[in-house]
Amino acid sequence: MRFVTFEHRGGRSWGTLSREGEIVDHGAASTFDSLRSAIAGARPDELAELERGAPRIDAGGVRLLPPVPDPSKVLCVGYNYPDNRSLRYDAPAGDAHVLPDHPVVFSRFNDTLVGDGEGLRVPRRSSNFDFEGELAIVVGAGGSDIPVDDALDHVFGYSVFNDATVRDYGSSANHFTAGKTFPSSAAFGPAVVTPDEVGDISDLVLRTRLNGAVVQEARLGDLIFGVAEVIAYCSQWARLQPGDVIATGTPGGVGASRRPPVWMLPGDVCEVEIDQIGLLTNPVTDEMAHEHEFLVG
Amino acid sequence: MRFVTFEHRGGRSWGTLSREGEIVDHGAASTFDSLRSAIAGARPDELAELERGAPRIDAGGVRLLPPVPDPSKVLCVGYNYPDNRSLRYDAPAGDAHVLPDHPVVFSRFNDTLVGDGEGLRVPRRSSNFDFEGELAIVVGAGGSDIPVDDALDHVFGYSVFNDATVRDYGSSANHFTAGKTFPSSAAFGPAVVTPDEVGDISDLVLRTRLNGAVVQEARLGDLIFGVAEVIAYCSQWARLQPGDVIATGTPGGVGASRRPPVWMLPGDVCEVEIDQIGLLTNPVTDEMAHEHEFLVG
Repeated sequence: MRFVTFEHRGGRSWGTLSREGEIVDHGAASTFDSLRSAIAGARPDELAELERGAPRIDAGGVRLLPPVPDPSKVLCVGYNYPDNRSLRYDAPAGDAHVLPDHPVVFSRFNDTLVGDGEGLRVPRRSSNFDFEGELAIVVGAGGSDIPVDDALDHVFGYSVFNDATVRDYGSSANHFTAGKTFPSSAAFGPAVVTPDEVGDISDLVLRTRLNGAVVQEARLGDLIFGVAEVIAYCSQWARLQPGDVIATGTPGGVGASRRPPVWMLPGDVCEVEIDQIGLLTNPVTDEMAHEHEFLVG
Repeated sequence: MRFVTFEHRGGRSWGTLSREGEIVDHGAASTFDSLRSAIAGARPDELAELERGAPRIDAGGVRLLPPVPDPSKVLCVGYNYPDNRSLRYDAPAGDAHVLPDHPVVFSRFNDTLVGDGEGLRVPRRSSNFDFEGELAIVVGAGGSDIPVDDALDHVFGYSVFNDATVRDYGSSANHFTAGKTFPSSAAFGPAVVTPDEVGDISDLVLRTRLNGAVVQEARLGDLIFGVAEVIAYCSQWARLQPGDVIATGTPGGVGASRRPPVWMLPGDVCEVEIDQIGLLTNPVTDEMAHEHEFLVG
């Protein structure tokens, strides 16, 4: 199943994408008022049952939001592909290929996220706005201290994430918060896809395209810390809750690593696509184009 | 006025502390169901009006929560007193006294916060649990790109914060998220005090006591980046919203800087006190003592 959250006729609801490309409006047919509450309150097979009586909407008439617009936590892994280790600003020279003993993790706020089709916003204060295509995990059953061997049981589904970074705010203080907190600076969606539709993720390919040109390409099997390891590590110190989002890190090829650097500019289109999981497409805009942003988060 | 959020007879409400030490239950007498929504929807003088008809509760019968338990953002400043600069793990040797050109900021999740009187939890995985007494700002009017000269107009009030850190999770990856995300690992309260009750903050003294012994002591005037500068900087990249919390950084004297190090252990009591603003007292507990923690956040 492919779960989405959307706006339709001024209201917010959630549901699934049907094979015919329609949106099945679960929110109109269930007691759960959000996908997050549905993940917390029902099993996927119970959610599948809901599909039968739910009204169907033409997908062209809705605005997609981040599939979980209100997670209790958005965690993001850094430096999790071998070819992106050199981006670790604080690594001593020559140390770029030393593998760490655990993931590096930072966090995002919900109002930094937009859904598929919405504008990624270049801040007025910076033009160093970089793409970062990633696999996102959406947590099903929450927990603390989840063993690696049990961790995949805590996956509700997978999605696509563009963990874009305002580089000149991110690197100057050697910390992640400022460069990852600009409103509408990251994209997430279009849908959360349950693991039964995805199968083994290790052979899936992630590609980021800027204006149609491939700028990042990696197999998910190249993740240094895989899905289970990332969930287990984060649960050591974060109380994971249903609907929480973990972006698993970006591969090499980001704009900051190029000579000359490549930045996203207003008028560009950035796409992140992962086989079986989805295509996340976002125009790049300036601040003036974001009249809708206060509706999200 | 001194605003609090509390639990009473199984329900959550918000209100003020009266001069007589009672709690005035604004939540029972207004249409605002939380202090956050009240900050967003009313001016302080309108909130003062509410006090007249509100019921009064004996303070002994309530459990205090963080005064704003559900902020959209909790931001925390690092290295913001001259005598704590040496704690900057990534500073080159000898560089500890170079002042930065802007604050270093990281973030917290709401479920890491407890109120006055609640237990600060030592994680099972670590005994390197360190105190960090701080001044907290609670944002009134939100905004982006707030000029320094206007920033104090965005202060709803001040509070006391213990931005405690699990040091061996915080430093090992040179990032803040893990060491600041353990559940119930920070304290905030007891109340948010409006600026008219506080006056000029620069001469106020902050003291942290561990089991009665003073372990940190600083004038708020010693902050490298003051309240206005911190708000202005954060608003460059974060969309500040009413009720958001900014902890302004801790002075020298933290446990990790001592030889031998001093950690908070179960059975200890940690107090952070700021003149005019309040006394935040928390027992230190282990994980088993936290049956209430899921109620917060």
